Amino acid sequence: MRRWNGWGEETTSMALPVQGREFLAGEIGGGLKLADATLETVLAKVPASRLGEHPLVVREPLDRLLHARGQSLPDWLAMREGEFGRFPDGVAYPQSAAQIRELLRYAAEQDCLLIAYGGGTSVAGHINPPDSAKAVLTLSLEHMNRLLELDEESLVATFGPGANGPQVESQLRARGYTLGHFPQSWELSTLGGWVASRSSGQQSLRYGRIEQLFAGGTLETFAGPLDIPTFPASSAGPDLRELVLGSEGRFGVISSVKVRVSPLPEQENFHVVFLPSWQQGLRAIRRLAQARVPLSMLRLSNAVETRTQLTLAGHPRSIAWLERYLKLRGAGDGKCMLTVGVTGARAQNAASLKAARRLLKGFGGVFTGTLLGRKWEASRFRSPYLRETLWQAGYVVDTLETATDWSNVDNLMQRIEACLRDGLTAEGERVHVFSHLSHVYGEGSSIYTTYVFRPAASYAATHERWRRLKDSASRVIVENRGTISHQHGVGKDHAPYLAAEKGELGMATLRVLAGHFDPAGRLNPGTLLQE
Amino acid sequence: MRRWNGWGEETTSMALPVQGREFLAGEIGGGLKLADATLETVLAKVPASRLGEHPLVVREPLDRLLHARGQSLPDWLAMREGEFGRFPDGVAYPQSAAQIRELLRYAAEQDCLLIAYGGGTSVAGHINPPDSAKAVLTLSLEHMNRLLELDEESLVATFGPGANGPQVESQLRARGYTLGHFPQSWELSTLGGWVASRSSGQQSLRYGRIEQLFAGGTLETFAGPLDIPTFPASSAGPDLRELVLGSEGRFGVISSVKVRVSPLPEQENFHVVFLPSWQQGLRAIRRLAQARVPLSMLRLSNAVETRTQLTLAGHPRSIAWLERYLKLRGAGDGKCMLTVGVTGARAQNAASLKAARRLLKGFGGVFTGTLLGRKWEASRFRSPYLRETLWQAGYVVDTLETATDWSNVDNLMQRIEACLRDGLTAEGERVHVFSHLSHVYGEGSSIYTTYVFRPAASYAATHERWRRLKDSASRVIVENRGTISHQHGVGKDHAPYLAAEKGELGMATLRVLAGHFDPAGRLNPGTLLQE
Repeated sequence: MRRWNGWGEETTSMALPVQGREFLAGEIGGGLKLADATLETVLAKVPASRLGEHPLVVREPLDRLLHARGQSLPDWLAMREGEFGRFPDGVAYPQSAAQIRELLRYAAEQDCLLIAYGGGTSVAGHINPPDSAKAVLTLSLEHMNRLLELDEESLVATFGPGANGPQVESQLRARGYTLGHFPQSWELSTLGGWVASRSSGQQSLRYGRIEQLFAGGTLETFAGPLDIPTFPASSAGPDLRELVLGSEGRFGVISSVKVRVSPLPEQENFHVVFLPSWQQGLRAIRRLAQARVPLSMLRLSNAVETRTQLTLAGHPRSIAWLERYLKLRGAGDGKCMLTVGVTGARAQNAASLKAARRLLKGFGGVFTGTLLGRKWEASRFRSPYLRETLWQAGYVVDTLETATDWSNVDNLMQRIEACLRDGLTAEGERVHVFSHLSHVYGEGSSIYTTYVFRPAASYAATHERWRRLKDSASRVIVENRGTISHQHGVGKDHAPYLAAEKGELGMATLRVLAGHFDPAGRLNPGTLLQE
Repeated sequence: MRRWNGWGEETTSMALPVQGREFLAGEIGGGLKLADATLETVLAKVPASRLGEHPLVVREPLDRLLHARGQSLPDWLAMREGEFGRFPDGVAYPQSAAQIRELLRYAAEQDCLLIAYGGGTSVAGHINPPDSAKAVLTLSLEHMNRLLELDEESLVATFGPGANGPQVESQLRARGYTLGHFPQSWELSTLGGWVASRSSGQQSLRYGRIEQLFAGGTLETFAGPLDIPTFPASSAGPDLRELVLGSEGRFGVISSVKVRVSPLPEQENFHVVFLPSWQQGLRAIRRLAQARVPLSMLRLSNAVETRTQLTLAGHPRSIAWLERYLKLRGAGDGKCMLTVGVTGARAQNAASLKAARRLLKGFGGVFTGTLLGRKWEASRFRSPYLRETLWQAGYVVDTLETATDWSNVDNLMQRIEACLRDGLTAEGERVHVFSHLSHVYGEGSSIYTTYVFRPAASYAATHERWRRLKDSASRVIVENRGTISHQHGVGKDHAPYLAAEKGELGMATLRVLAGHFDPAGRLNPGTLLQE
């Protein structure tokens, strides 16, 4: 059973060992737990639907409750407090493009707003109903989850937009293929959602971002269907795929997705290397990316993240042993953990690993084999469960992310971390902050920052703490050459900061496009473009 | 001195050995030469300019003549006949973004049309003044050709838009870098033109297309400047770079271009391999691309192109020796030549070549070393000169290109070749047709087809022969899952076929964008979008 007020399956959790609890208490003080609402109290608050009857539209309170919120920190606080704010007035579960078009017609008749819903995993408020006098219909694509066609020569697969990560991979795996797109939300997020929000997976270094994997498909709009045929490449004018990518439900509803798949790799390994310092680690992964060594992943934790992860892992004796060994080899207090993935043919992997090993040794890298890599692999989709664990322990955790050119990566990371670390000083609260770089390119890198703080005495005051932290970090990002999002998208939470990077004319251009595809402004208002 | 009525430098030419002439005579009959106009007669036809005076605007007949036509086959025929049709009314050579903006204001005042001009190498009619009652100002960016900034950590270089291939590479090379973008037009075409027309270079397999190299920059539009900052990647909504790419002068004038550069490679080699048949070659390069073997180029000629190239190379004795050797090794009459490029670190190149060799041997590939590869390299930018050579010998040559998914590559190539080969049968004329695949992707490949035919008794009848061939081949392409262009862009020649792949709503979207950036419709009308 999926949690109604948090991440993932009720039966799954991530343990916090006693050492982790002690570590956090030392860093930011003991935990404080706010009371959780029950499902019954929230269900009782769902108001009557404002939508008229339609065979495809479900107006039950539970359906509406389960599609009201995503997984942002404000969503979390709202769900735990039981103060959801707006609910959709109905939820539809179309089974075909024809039903999506029927629902667009219904939305026009009802003069209601329409929100396309994939896995509900947005951490930026993409799918939350806006505060509007109009009714809201949420369109869940969960039933359109099948592999519809597979061109094994061209390696192009056609899926329904609602296929989630496991549905995509299991249907491909049965035929010997993989998409290779593994965002942390993979267990719940969907192909259509990845496309609409420009998602990036953990092995983007090999498989590319969703931009590179998305080959074509159909967007159902109020101006008719936008059908995008597949070509390996084209110079025939602006690429319309790029208008669907990142459209976040503003231009239309994606009804089919064609993706570039790969044969299942012969071999895949994740090796963990420790670098003696952040600066050495940073230079090393930049060089690896710029030398085009064919790896599938590079993930470098900074010193605080490294220390935090080793502590939260439990197993203090093994870790102590590991740390003694690393210190002897030159990776002491400021050490940074680097995970190196190789995926593909054995011979190619061996050559890639050899090249990586040689380069990393030049930066003082100490290889520890694949044991820690296997641990990472086993829990690669578990991090989102940590919020529940920490919440129960009396802490709030959130993440934010950006990307910038290499010459600015260190500067931007330091500024983001500093502004979060000092963000609650006025209230006498500390914030535990750490970062990693997990998507590297020739030009630069993503920066993924986690911050942990204590709730205040009330939900409202806790939300205000978050808002101040998030706002100051977002400003630091856009004022210092970072993009407001590398992989989470814009949604509602990042929309106020978008103009800083798109510019006045860029924003006007996006509005012109929204008006073109959706003249009445029914599609997901407030997301991507502020009202 | 650059030729006023054809490709490239007057002092450069490509010889046609006697064997080549005999071969063509055997294939399609002896050559027929039409008379060339002189520069003086054409200059005398340039009418008075309709533009008012401006310090940045040159209204001299020679400047206007030299910017009136590109390098399409209709352009060629017009230039050789001396019937240019429309000339621009003036040419401006801005030196800065401020001057470009000044010229946009001037164009509005004068109520004239404005055409951005890079190297004038379009083979699809991009820069030809349309037949309009309004005056036309051509804006040559040739003076904006400098490397303005180089971020050596992020490998991002900022250039003026008018830098041509040699200017880009020489300025980067002096600092130890390369862009790695080498279209066949490289000696004359420009960075801004590559971006505006979505160009692809011969080593796109390593460096990517211009879409992957273009990191940001500025587009000056009638609605203001569109400034695109550089990020290694972003999920912050639709990517505005993608609106500049392929905009073909319709949305604005590119005033600066930021590109992703690479350190100069340690080593680069081109190996020539012969495959026993087209089918074997096709399967082999598909497998190489899909296995992600890190090569820099794969270029497979079909059997007719292989035979034609070996014959046109001259050196009949060496070729006969080579062919005997190849036949002994299993590559006889239907053999296909494959050029394999490796670029990068020596160790990586050795590993890549080993992987390629093993795979190609499985398809009957016979390696002949790097001698023929060096010959290809030495003349890699010479093919455009062949049109002059063949013209002098009494033949017309043109090329066309597309891209499609692997499952359709053979089908589409056969259909294109058949329609060209039989296209002049009604007049009792033969057409010599051959193709190669030179840009391969996991999903599919480009198809590049060359066709040679004899001029008719007049220029008008010769143009009509071309028009019939081009039209029927273009229809075959768009009716059979091909894109109307993989690397040449749309221009005016491909514009009638664009709707077949963009769809009704896609075309309407492009028009909405053009109207947004250029409400009065002054920018390059007729290109990309038909009037």
